[in-house]
Formats: sequence, structure tokens, C-alpha cells
Amino acid sequence: MKAVVFDKELKLDKNYEKPVMQKGEVKLAGICNTDYEITKGYMGYKGVLGHEFVGIVEDVNSDDKSLVGKRVVAEISYGCHKPDCEWCNQGLVRHCPDRHTIGIWRKDGCFAEYITLPTEILFEVPDNVSDEQVVFVEPLAAACEIVEQLHIQPVQKVLVQGDGKLGLTTALALNAYNYDVTLAGRHQNKLDIAAKQGVKTILSQDLKKEPIYDVVVEATGSITGFEDAMALTKPRGVLVLKSTVAGSKEINLAPIVINEITVLGSRCGQFKPALRLLENNRIDFKPLISGIYNADDAIEAFEKNKEKDTLKVILKFD
Amino acid sequence: MKAVVFDKELKLDKNYEKPVMQKGEVKLAGICNTDYEITKGYMGYKGVLGHEFVGIVEDVNSDDKSLVGKRVVAEISYGCHKPDCEWCNQGLVRHCPDRHTIGIWRKDGCFAEYITLPTEILFEVPDNVSDEQVVFVEPLAAACEIVEQLHIQPVQKVLVQGDGKLGLTTALALNAYNYDVTLAGRHQNKLDIAAKQGVKTILSQDLKKEPIYDVVVEATGSITGFEDAMALTKPRGVLVLKSTVAGSKEINLAPIVINEITVLGSRCGQFKPALRLLENNRIDFKPLISGIYNADDAIEAFEKNKEKDTLKVILKFD
Repeated sequence: MKAVVFDKELKLDKNYEKPVMQKGEVKLAGICNTDYEITKGYMGYKGVLGHEFVGIVEDVNSDDKSLVGKRVVAEISYGCHKPDCEWCNQGLVRHCPDRHTIGIWRKDGCFAEYITLPTEILFEVPDNVSDEQVVFVEPLAAACEIVEQLHIQPVQKVLVQGDGKLGLTTALALNAYNYDVTLAGRHQNKLDIAAKQGVKTILSQDLKKEPIYDVVVEATGSITGFEDAMALTKPRGVLVLKSTVAGSKEINLAPIVINEITVLGSRCGQFKPALRLLENNRIDFKPLISGIYNADDAIEAFEKNKEKDTLKVILKFD
Repeated sequence: MKAVVFDKELKLDKNYEKPVMQKGEVKLAGICNTDYEITKGYMGYKGVLGHEFVGIVEDVNSDDKSLVGKRVVAEISYGCHKPDCEWCNQGLVRHCPDRHTIGIWRKDGCFAEYITLPTEILFEVPDNVSDEQVVFVEPLAAACEIVEQLHIQPVQKVLVQGDGKLGLTTALALNAYNYDVTLAGRHQNKLDIAAKQGVKTILSQDLKKEPIYDVVVEATGSITGFEDAMALTKPRGVLVLKSTVAGSKEINLAPIVINEITVLGSRCGQFKPALRLLENNRIDFKPLISGIYNADDAIEAFEKNKEKDTLKVILKFD
């Protein structure tokens, strides 16, 4: 089968071995910046890339075949489920030390015609949600994770820094939760996507460096962004760190201590609340789609993903 | 009067102007690493140094003279107390943007024969607590601040990194609160001070870099210590940042996101719980005293403070 494989270099392998058992057909898959980071060495991963997708269940390796033919999405990690695993027992499989993470860690990803997955991480897609919308469910779930980790008071001021797809998705999600959210970024055209859906926006150059936000979400992916976020967070406020980018310069962490800021690391989230947002049409992701490419043009799609103005690039596998 | 003043250089000024109103006589004062950082430029402060002390109230500028003659300690910050100050209204005067902080920000410090202070920040010292013990109340309050900010479960494992006075004080305080606390450091003689009071200790070189601690307190004051702390904190655990040291090298913050660690900045604390610990003899600070110097030898005392094996250096003003 066709698969987008990373092993020292990115390639489209037209004869990758088709996985057996519990297999499902991938329809659409989205390219995430994490996929791009992997091609630069992140996590030392080799194999089929991709963790954002929607597909159809072709077969199930159990007597219960009720999922066959269903349109599904899948959470990206599954745990060991051993009786003594404190993480699996808490429902935090994404921190299980023996976990598998699709296309990132010990498990082939979704940039392929077929993928096998445990049924426990599959979710049926509501009929009224299109493939193009639901392929965003994974980054949307990651945005909703903030609401799982942190109780934001309705009167608090939230700033999201960065108008890339991570920042846009986060701002749209927090806006869907009715928070007082402002998105700051450097691209008017990207800010406008959020503004049209009710998010307050501001160009970064117009943002005063004052510590007036109760919650600042850092989604620029840069150390400079992290420094700005420290300067914008109120004393005793929360800086939510969403970007996994390594530091490229020295950094002074003293403001965290002086202003007693809480830095909250936030990664992936649960799909149920994200699917509810999509089912209820709270967010329109179509304006974030910068291109839909056939799987045969996957390498070209990755090139498109690197371009400055690109938001979400989608691969089509049918 | 005699005062230890910093203005470009550290000096003992024997003719510093004596402050008027609400003045009190300083008995003992402790040198903190923050004082040393100030002499290297921290906060851009100029003036009398020092914020850890015990003294006697000589006069009070009001009809209520009940505090006169009393032995007191003082919290280091006082706020504006304007009706619309959200920080003062919450009792968080240490975050009031218009605050004064003794010997650090807009207020002469305690390394002098006399100091004036608002009575609202004074606390009477219980009779059974010696001057040598109570001069530690400010760093002890800063250690107790962790318990104010964070609910540590009794079964959770706590690691304090760094066996300087900050780390020792923190480990002794958390131990006094009956937590399962381990102190890691590089100096067996310093670790022994904590071990004798019931703290578990380990040499840093013997500490496995495993993410098994629910709470890690970073008190080494180094970026390397911060990196180690990230590696030692459990997924979803809390890294308490107590050191205000700037980064001297590049740093990768990705572990915070991947393991969804909370970094909690923690600075000064309230005196009441610290005074209760001292009144009930829960901690013996005498083994932390590396020397008591007369005010006339203040510069020498600062030199002593810089030495590697030094813990607390105390100045005597009577």
C-alpha cells in the first residue's frame, strides 16, 4: 500500500506492507507541525508518519463487528492497561511509560492507505460532521486539553500568542468555551480567520508588553514567544506552554519566580469534548485548510506545509 | 548610624542618615543570596541592603504604643492598600505593582542600626524563640509558601534539589509538614544537617534521573538544576521553581509539554505559619549558621557568604 514513511529521509513508499488485523482505511489525514519536527529528528521516530485522520473501519478482530463500515477518528496514544499502571488506571494513557503513539512513538502512523488500531481509542464521527472538519479533531482535542487541566474563570482574560494552526485552533476552541480570549499574531490574514468567528485579535506589534492576562497560551513555538508570554502573564497567572520547541538562546526564568507564574505544560487531549464542539458546529475549520493533496503528492504536500502562509495541509488517501 | 549600603559597590557607611518615625532597632540580620545577587545588579537596587532580621520597636508613630519595646520580625513587602488594588485586596501585597520590598525595591533594608517600617507587616516574636532562630523566619516563610500555593498529597514523593541554605530550609520546612521529602545535594556535610532532623538525603551523584517525584523543588539556582528537575518530575507533576537565576545556556522546554509538567514559580511567603513552626521547635536552624559578624565587619561577612561551604552568615547590630 502507499505510505508516507520517514527513515532518515521522507519518502512515499508505494509498496509498504499493509497492516493486518483491526485494519481500517484512511480517508483524510492532516499534516501537523509535529510531523515536520519528526523529519528534523524529534523523538528519533522512524516509520509511517501522521496522527491526524479520519477513516473507515474495514474489519475488527473480534466477534463484535459493529464498528465495521463506520467512519471513525482515533486518539493518538494507547496505553499498556496493565493492572498496576498508575497512568492507565487514571485514564491518562498518554502518559503511560509503555504507551504507543500513532506516527510518533512505536506505532506506524496514518499517512498510509491502511492503519491498524485498538478499538478502545476509536470514536465514531457524528453524521453531520464532514471529513474536512473532523480531520481537525486531534488538534482541537489538544486545545480542549487546556480546559481539562485548568479552571479558567469566566471573567479572566486569556491571550493566545501565535496565529499558526496551533494558536488559531486554541483561540477558536477557547472562544467556543465562551472565554474572553484574544489572539495575537503577526499575520492579519490569519487573525481574520479567528476574528470572523468571534475571537478578539491583535497584531503582535500592537500588543503592549504588560502583565495583564490571567492566562497566556504560548503557541508561537519560539523561545522569544515564551519570553513575551512571561511578560504578559499577570502575577500568579498561568502560562500554558503548548509548543515543544527547544530553546535557541539563553533564557531568564526569574520572572516565573518573581511573579509566581505557573507554567502549565499541555499536550494532547481527549476526543469527546472536541467531537461535541464539531457536532454542534461551534467552529468552522474550513478556512484553515491551505490545500488538499492526493497521497501520491505527499512529498509536495510536506513542502507546502513548510511555506510561511500555509495553515493545514491535508492528504487524501481514497 | 551604621548601614551596609549598595550603590555601584558594597560599603559600610558609618554616617548613614538615621530614619525617622516608626523606627526600630535591628538586632540580628541574615545575609541572603538575593543580597549577593543585588550586588551583581539584580533589580537595579541601590540603598541599604538586607531583608532578614529581628529587632526591637523603639517608637511607633501613632497613639497606640503597644508595640514599643517588643521584639519583632517583618514581612519583606508592603502594598499600596488603595481600595482598587486587586493584589492588596487579595492579601497578596507582595504582588502589588506599587509595593515596597525591604532592601530590594524602593525601601532601605535592615543591614543598618535602625529601620522604619509600617506596623502592619510586623510580627511579635514568641518569647521561647531565640534571636538566632527567628532571624531565619523570612526564608522559612518562603519555604512555607510552597504549601500555600500547592496542595501536596501526604502520599506524594517530594524531592528538593540543592543543599544550599534555600534547599536546606525548604527540605526542613516540608519535613516539618510531614511530607515524604528527599533532599539531594553535592555536599555530605550539608545533607547531614537535614538528615539529623529527619529528612531523607541523597548525594546528587547517586540520584537516578528518573521521573518518579510528584513534586520537585529546584533550589540549586542553576539552569542545569532546572533541566535535572524536569527529568525528575513525574508526568503531570509539579516543578517548584524557587531560584531566580538567569539562564547561562540554551534550554529545551519540550519536557514540560510532553510530560505536562506544571512549573510553579514561588517567591516569598507569609510569616504566621513560619513563626508557628519556630514556636513549636519543629526546626533547628543553628546548624545552618556559618558565622555571626559584628556590623563593623559587614564587608568581611559578605566575603564569607561567597565561600563555597558557607550557609547562613549573620550580622549583629547591637
